[in-house]
Amino acid sequence: MSRIAYVNGRYLPHRRAMVHVEDRGFQFADGAYEVIAVRGGGLLDEGPHLRRLHRSLSALQIAPPMSDAALKSVMRETVRRNRVSAGMLYIQVTRGSAPREFAFPATARPTLVMTARNLKPLDPKLLTDGVRVITVPDIRWARPDIKSVALLPNALGKQRAKEVGAYEAWQVDRDGNVTEGTSSNAWIVTAQDEIITRHADQGILNGVTRLGILKVAGEAGLKLIERSFSVAEAKAAREAFLTSTTNFIVPVVRIDDVNLGEGRPGKLAGRLRALYDDYVAAGGGK
Amino acid sequence: MSRIAYVNGRYLPHRRAMVHVEDRGFQFADGAYEVIAVRGGGLLDEGPHLRRLHRSLSALQIAPPMSDAALKSVMRETVRRNRVSAGMLYIQVTRGSAPREFAFPATARPTLVMTARNLKPLDPKLLTDGVRVITVPDIRWARPDIKSVALLPNALGKQRAKEVGAYEAWQVDRDGNVTEGTSSNAWIVTAQDEIITRHADQGILNGVTRLGILKVAGEAGLKLIERSFSVAEAKAAREAFLTSTTNFIVPVVRIDDVNLGEGRPGKLAGRLRALYDDYVAAGGGK
Repeated sequence: MSRIAYVNGRYLPHRRAMVHVEDRGFQFADGAYEVIAVRGGGLLDEGPHLRRLHRSLSALQIAPPMSDAALKSVMRETVRRNRVSAGMLYIQVTRGSAPREFAFPATARPTLVMTARNLKPLDPKLLTDGVRVITVPDIRWARPDIKSVALLPNALGKQRAKEVGAYEAWQVDRDGNVTEGTSSNAWIVTAQDEIITRHADQGILNGVTRLGILKVAGEAGLKLIERSFSVAEAKAAREAFLTSTTNFIVPVVRIDDVNLGEGRPGKLAGRLRALYDDYVAAGGGK
Repeated sequence: MSRIAYVNGRYLPHRRAMVHVEDRGFQFADGAYEVIAVRGGGLLDEGPHLRRLHRSLSALQIAPPMSDAALKSVMRETVRRNRVSAGMLYIQVTRGSAPREFAFPATARPTLVMTARNLKPLDPKLLTDGVRVITVPDIRWARPDIKSVALLPNALGKQRAKEVGAYEAWQVDRDGNVTEGTSSNAWIVTAQDEIITRHADQGILNGVTRLGILKVAGEAGLKLIERSFSVAEAKAAREAFLTSTTNFIVPVVRIDDVNLGEGRPGKLAGRLRALYDDYVAAGGGK
């Protein structure tokens, strides 16, 4: 648990880290967020995460709560005060607190909250055994490319996965294509060693880890294709994996009730994980 | 502004009414709400609103925060402490506060917040002149029948209406049919005096005022049809109106850039408003 939280100008003990009941983040899901991995006390891919935060805020017409220099200073201080060496920093910006009405308030100042905590290392069994995902209908709003806190459908999807003992739920659009997981991007590998992940349109969040993996895979000369793929294609894939900020790359060995290949983690997922570990060790993206 | 807010067992001065930054309502839009009109200090349609709250909570698998008897007691006390005679009571229930992860927490207790305030009477010009609505794509998640706080798309739609001087935005599904307003239900009247509003499927919130109007209109022998209608049909309608908890019935005289009929409020909207005023005066629904 985060011990110190930053809330609108103050560093507070976690239990006293509060926002107003009329904060638009609480009443309207009117805000955006980022999760950034912390490694060796440093923020991985800080630049790409901050750029994406600005993209989300801009799409929602929420003013940045402070300059990037000030934001970075608070980010570092939140990590430092919580003594995070390997874990995550959570940043949330909302449109602020105002008497409740649907249209934007004229005068509200954006709310800025940050928390940080150490995370247990990824269970190595997830890498050696792989995980199962289930498929669920993608019931989210039409703009999941905006990293908003309107995450109710994601929470419901993840819960359904948990209830059946799966690790993640892959969301499926009306055309039968996989969009992404509830908190991760989805990837498959074909029999021709093509690494496929959905193109980054308005239908998915363009994951920072996703972009990092595209980069290292491209540099390694691997075959990359950004396009939609169906559930049927995924179930017939040679291998599959998912990517996220906190867990990087996790191999998928079973989709719904279908084993992929021999039901063991694939070679390319393992190779990408090694390449990505090098990328992380080298400090990530700018 | 509400002067006293109820938050998890305590009545607090408004400025000190806070929830934790890890409340799932703030981080995941993981909660439901109701707005109830207050008239003469009493709660209008309290029974239907409470039943709908339970329906939302049940759909989200959130346990009721307390018994209905206790809930009603807090509702009355919140209205009383804020000396509300004509206004609204706002109730929000979330899954509670817990270390952030997408799946439901094992132990969190639901958060319960209530605020109440007097509202200025509806500007009579809205009734004599009518209002303009614009149409926008319905970009919400697939379950707007659940009254969740995942209201970001609604806020964006209402803001767009406000920016062009309109009163409300009617949301339009992929088939070109009007679903509902961002915080109201949508109605049209045909040349044959048929009163049409979308059937209550998963595509709309089944408004309590909507139900009350169906009731009084039915009892008055008016022709009611619950079915989808297109934007084109709405623009060609004899009249139109919208309904909501706080404003009851407001006539619509212009959709986008098209005047309805003579651009004046319609007769049936006026008649329904009078019938509904009687319903309100008689204490509403049980």
